[in-house]
Amino acid sequence: MMKPKPTDRFTFGLWTIGWDAADPFGAPTRSPLPLEDALEGLASIGAYGVTFHDNDLYDFHSSEEDRRSRIDLLKSLLPKTGLKVPMITTNLFSHPIFKDGAFTSNDREVRRFAIGKTLENLDLAAELGAETFVMWGGREGSEYDFSKDVGAALDRYREAVNYLADYVLEQGYKIKFAIEPKPNEPRGDILLPTIGHALAFIGTLDHPELVGLNPEVGHEQMAGLNFLAGIAQTMNAGKLFHIDLNGQRGIKYDQDLVFGHGDLLNAFALVDLLEHGLEEGSDPYSGPRHFDYKPSRTEDRKGVWESAKANIQTYLLLRERAEAFRNDPEVNEAMRLSRVSELRTRSLSENDSFQGLKSEYRSGISSASRYFDGKGFGFVQLNQLALQHLLKA
Amino acid sequence: MMKPKPTDRFTFGLWTIGWDAADPFGAPTRSPLPLEDALEGLASIGAYGVTFHDNDLYDFHSSEEDRRSRIDLLKSLLPKTGLKVPMITTNLFSHPIFKDGAFTSNDREVRRFAIGKTLENLDLAAELGAETFVMWGGREGSEYDFSKDVGAALDRYREAVNYLADYVLEQGYKIKFAIEPKPNEPRGDILLPTIGHALAFIGTLDHPELVGLNPEVGHEQMAGLNFLAGIAQTMNAGKLFHIDLNGQRGIKYDQDLVFGHGDLLNAFALVDLLEHGLEEGSDPYSGPRHFDYKPSRTEDRKGVWESAKANIQTYLLLRERAEAFRNDPEVNEAMRLSRVSELRTRSLSENDSFQGLKSEYRSGISSASRYFDGKGFGFVQLNQLALQHLLKA
Amino acid sequence: MMKPKPTDRFTFGLWTIGWDAADPFGAPTRSPLPLEDALEGLASIGAYGVTFHDNDLYDFHSSEEDRRSRIDLLKSLLPKTGLKVPMITTNLFSHPIFKDGAFTSNDREVRRFAIGKTLENLDLAAELGAETFVMWGGREGSEYDFSKDVGAALDRYREAVNYLADYVLEQGYKIKFAIEPKPNEPRGDILLPTIGHALAFIGTLDHPELVGLNPEVGHEQMAGLNFLAGIAQTMNAGKLFHIDLNGQRGIKYDQDLVFGHGDLLNAFALVDLLEHGLEEGSDPYSGPRHFDYKPSRTEDRKGVWESAKANIQTYLLLRERAEAFRNDPEVNEAMRLSRVSELRTRSLSENDSFQGLKSEYRSGISSASRYFDGKGFGFVQLNQLALQHLLKA
Amino acid sequence: MMKPKPTDRFTFGLWTIGWDAADPFGAPTRSPLPLEDALEGLASIGAYGVTFHDNDLYDFHSSEEDRRSRIDLLKSLLPKTGLKVPMITTNLFSHPIFKDGAFTSNDREVRRFAIGKTLENLDLAAELGAETFVMWGGREGSEYDFSKDVGAALDRYREAVNYLADYVLEQGYKIKFAIEPKPNEPRGDILLPTIGHALAFIGTLDHPELVGLNPEVGHEQMAGLNFLAGIAQTMNAGKLFHIDLNGQRGIKYDQDLVFGHGDLLNAFALVDLLEHGLEEGSDPYSGPRHFDYKPSRTEDRKGVWESAKANIQTYLLLRERAEAFRNDPEVNEAMRLSRVSELRTRSLSENDSFQGLKSEYRSGISSASRYFDGKGFGFVQLNQLALQHLLKA
Repeated sequence: MMKPKPTDRFTFGLWTIGWDAADPFGAPTRSPLPLEDALEGLASIGAYGVTFHDNDLYDFHSSEEDRRSRIDLLKSLLPKTGLKVPMITTNLFSHPIFKDGAFTSNDREVRRFAIGKTLENLDLAAELGAETFVMWGGREGSEYDFSKDVGAALDRYREAVNYLADYVLEQGYKIKFAIEPKPNEPRGDILLPTIGHALAFIGTLDHPELVGLNPEVGHEQMAGLNFLAGIAQTMNAGKLFHIDLNGQRGIKYDQDLVFGHGDLLNAFALVDLLEHGLEEGSDPYSGPRHFDYKPSRTEDRKGVWESAKANIQTYLLLRERAEAFRNDPEVNEAMRLSRVSELRTRSLSENDSFQGLKSEYRSGISSASRYFDGKGFGFVQLNQLALQHLLKA
Repeated sequence: MMKPKPTDRFTFGLWTIGWDAADPFGAPTRSPLPLEDALEGLASIGAYGVTFHDNDLYDFHSSEEDRRSRIDLLKSLLPKTGLKVPMITTNLFSHPIFKDGAFTSNDREVRRFAIGKTLENLDLAAELGAETFVMWGGREGSEYDFSKDVGAALDRYREAVNYLADYVLEQGYKIKFAIEPKPNEPRGDILLPTIGHALAFIGTLDHPELVGLNPEVGHEQMAGLNFLAGIAQTMNAGKLFHIDLNGQRGIKYDQDLVFGHGDLLNAFALVDLLEHGLEEGSDPYSGPRHFDYKPSRTEDRKGVWESAKANIQTYLLLRERAEAFRNDPEVNEAMRLSRVSELRTRSLSENDSFQGLKSEYRSGISSASRYFDGKGFGFVQLNQLALQHLLKA
Repeated sequence: MMKPKPTDRFTFGLWTIGWDAADPFGAPTRSPLPLEDALEGLASIGAYGVTFHDNDLYDFHSSEEDRRSRIDLLKSLLPKTGLKVPMITTNLFSHPIFKDGAFTSNDREVRRFAIGKTLENLDLAAELGAETFVMWGGREGSEYDFSKDVGAALDRYREAVNYLADYVLEQGYKIKFAIEPKPNEPRGDILLPTIGHALAFIGTLDHPELVGLNPEVGHEQMAGLNFLAGIAQTMNAGKLFHIDLNGQRGIKYDQDLVFGHGDLLNAFALVDLLEHGLEEGSDPYSGPRHFDYKPSRTEDRKGVWESAKANIQTYLLLRERAEAFRNDPEVNEAMRLSRVSELRTRSLSENDSFQGLKSEYRSGISSASRYFDGKGFGFVQLNQLALQHLLKA
Repeated sequence: MMKPKPTDRFTFGLWTIGWDAADPFGAPTRSPLPLEDALEGLASIGAYGVTFHDNDLYDFHSSEEDRRSRIDLLKSLLPKTGLKVPMITTNLFSHPIFKDGAFTSNDREVRRFAIGKTLENLDLAAELGAETFVMWGGREGSEYDFSKDVGAALDRYREAVNYLADYVLEQGYKIKFAIEPKPNEPRGDILLPTIGHALAFIGTLDHPELVGLNPEVGHEQMAGLNFLAGIAQTMNAGKLFHIDLNGQRGIKYDQDLVFGHGDLLNAFALVDLLEHGLEEGSDPYSGPRHFDYKPSRTEDRKGVWESAKANIQTYLLLRERAEAFRNDPEVNEAMRLSRVSELRTRSLSENDSFQGLKSEYRSGISSASRYFDGKGFGFVQLNQLALQHLLKA
């Protein structure tokens, strides 16, 4: 067993180890996990921090006193357990009031309610020193094509996020927002369904510098998209503000398995990217490694904690293998043959001219056949080397 | 049979009705379609224009003379048939030289070759008066996670598009670029896999105003995404520069069926959106209705032309039904009950304050239960009305 | 509005119109529907019958007296409302005891409990005159490849179904079983995931004649499979004992939309098949048209009933269009050109010999090129005719 | 590098290492591989045998003399290289004559042609001592729901396979048939789309004992199905006659990647199953480990052979890890806690009575709550142990 260190920044949502294991076809199989037990458990397995939705900590209907007493309890437990709260988020999806969404509900009263709820929760984020405020708009969407004016919905979404950003600026909070995309479930189609759609949306905001992404492994894979490629585009845009690690086995309902218990090769490449960073244009990822998973409904309390540890173990193992992979001369030679790093060289030179490029193309046509039966890229061999490093073969 | 008019702007790619019907497991079932026949056929079914890749018109290895003679032939046929060329595009995917991509091939020589080929083709676009230059980067991608540095690839993609935009500006061409996203096939994962990823990428360009999208029905549906929602986000961003209409039956290989021969309800909502426009922030779509489909491999020449006509017929039928749907008082009443248009009202008022919103939320908690067993949205009934209008029930 | 007749045999599950609209990310938005209201409502919209799981009628923990009183209440309401109970089923998935399955739980005690629960429920089916006993093994499966010995699981599944069939035979009940396949959700992978897997399993039972299928539109579509083709294979095998009609929009979580509110063209072809039957080897489907859908979580009680009626309306509309389609001479001519009915002619003749077939092939090679640029099938045109009949164009 | 032995029975299709790398959007990137080179190459990497379609060896239009000379060439090369031909198959999908299928084409002439072609090829199988005759019906299907009478198509499929089986019996050939299911591509929907559908079809044949399956990793995964579970059901039915190993990254076009270069954890469990067998009811798999993959289009000849070797290496590595996994006492203890082997115990005892089971259930209701917060299955921990064994952690 490898041991995590605080600098590894492994964090867990209260809703993960605390999930009661109800699903669309079944009642809970586990009782609620008291806050004290959750925090002590997380500390004991080496977690760096804990995260939560407002209503993971206190009930939707809580009075202000009840809310405060739960917050105070949390604040007393943090120093005891040594846990940080690097991120919190707002539940805008469980209560019936959000049945058609929150910031983009067709119902204006609901939209205002959602904005107010989030403002209150931003105060809590600031109070707890959370640097990141995640926004998963799980109910922002529709099942039917005529029930939602998507253009208007995006306008309202933008209006809400702009207003929240104004609030953070006015209050001087050191908080950044991280939007979490998801293609569907619980809505038939969710707005900002992928990393790309959310990045594009951020570009239309008043304060794009305050807003980035919190991509989740399983969510992109539910659209059949390559998570590694999505993270690379996110980092290329300087927008990887937070990350949700878990496992998913293909295009189906949201599984929230343990990290690595889905597409293992892709998880390996992901850890490699997070640890080593993009070569160009962006720093390595230094934020929390946040596990947003669900301990399977078949597990009892012991299984819950074993599953939590499994996330950490898998990450540490993949990190170790990525390190060896990057340091292997055979790998570097294979990378060279595959011309992977040649892509980092600009295509154009300072003194290139349009006419020159056109001429180069014209005269190059006749020699293009070198790429037939030649100039292979060796990608399969490189992938096999990666697989063998992953397997410590 | 409904008759199309030139103002309907129905256009077809030469590669659609001219497809030889080879597929990964089968040889061609049809001979090449002579250019004259293609244009006469399109004119006879009421098409407004024709589009093509450079190598649909002339071979990859053509000498400059051969190329010119094919261009001249085309130019002589256009006035005879009355067809326009509103869009052209470059083939950067068929030849072995592009086996690892074009603008983002790991091989720098290839990247330069691709840029040169595109520059030459931009000159042709200008010569023919094409307003839109589509870029489908079908080979920009990879099969394996370690064979492509996605961050570097996006940098090279950007470098190429910036350079092309510089050329258009320098030459004073009246040409705009339209990127066509696709999630996979022929590469395992393609860069800019969805509308969202491409929109986000455009936001990072030097001249974003010159670059928009050419979304394709089937491409988004291959990622399980709602095409209508994607088009609405594209229009909301002012980026619907062109559109590829066709049909796809779910998440599988790229089918390129006739428009409407896939998700018919979604196609209905799409035509409604294109014809009526977003209510806020964007004009109705006035560009070509471009059919990028493939006549099935089972069809002979007669079947090819029947399939081409089917695209037009389906569009006209859906347009007729959308018109009736929008004019039906019962529909408008259902829309009102579903509060669809209420979403166009801003959530916030001029004199709203942060504190006021927080208070409104706090005091609203107790009455949130009105949304339990009440305040239903009536979305199913509205969808049923749409279905019944589609079916002229 | 078209009016249903009892002979249309439209039926609904109590769990459909009675769904409380809780989902994995949200609390209920509707209160429970009293049994009286459910049955009166169904009668008022023209339903022929009602179906249920044991625990839709009485609680899992009910004493025998409470159970009996609920059954008696139902039995008193049936004659009042005129509704029949053509099918019932057992809930073997909601309670925590079934968290690893029922007939195939790794835990033998659970397997025996599940068999006992089903036996008791078979007595109820007989008491109510239900002809069909549906078995959806939604929890029979696993999330992880090493947690379930699938071979042993199939053995236990077989053991259970054989035992239940023995019971029905011994008691002389006029009951047939209908297995309902589903690929995943709530388990990561469910045993007997498709129509095919279930048909194959039935072939290994002691009394295959007693067991058929209850395929569900959305379940097959969750695996990207063509529901029409699945139903045709089921009918070809004489195993369409019951059917669950609903809507699904592609490969994602189980949506249970209104029938037709998904792939409308496929629904049209399905109704055509159910109403007209396979031409060879099997009778038209004469069983209930059972709607297994969920009124969306956004709907209140009024919306629930509107959605129930929408299922019936859509079915009746599609039936009307299928009738016209079959009677249109243009369609019949297109069918002839597509050689659809030629497939009903045996490929071989009485006096064919192996040697003769080989020779016919050898000598046919040279003329195979007739299928290049010729002998097209006209499938696109036929499909367009179907689309136009669907739209009453 | 681990070295394969003949007893490992690794085989390759001529069409794999010989693929010219044309795809739907691109021309070939490699020249044809001469038969001599193919066989020598396979021998040198330790393959046990080679397989092929008739038209991989000789052209569709070959005269009988040309055909014979190619067969003779093959027969002279086999002893030189030491390779066996354990399986052959017929190409019923490339030529335009098969554009609507072969055994189930709507065109009767085509159906007869296909049967004759297969009869001729069965003679060749016998001549070469091939034990298995694979049938992939890739063109048996349709794109449109009204273009194929699926019931009739299944009847014709059955007629053809029955006739072929009669021929094998009459000739006294020691040949068994193995059907290869695939859900789609190149047809929109293919008949017998999954393992399940094909198993069910076999049960309706005249000589089911002569017909089994040749499942392919990627084909089942294209329907989102768990390949391990499919193989287990196939073995449970005694029908695993052959297997196609490769890699696929989710629901998309048919990728045919190297074995293991897709879902690696599932591949690990698969090798474990093939090597150790079902515990009940079926022998371990003793047939060829047949790699049906495509060397990526980016690769030149060197890359082709590296990719071929990668298949073998991955299999051997997974076999080694599976061996260690099975022998680890910690794993066995985890298996016991998960009650995996308890599923092999019959649910019922000799002296169980129907009434007894019902009583046991009734009295067990009150203690069912033990499964709430208790009696966890420990599946996540077991899966983590598997992952760690795979990674040699």
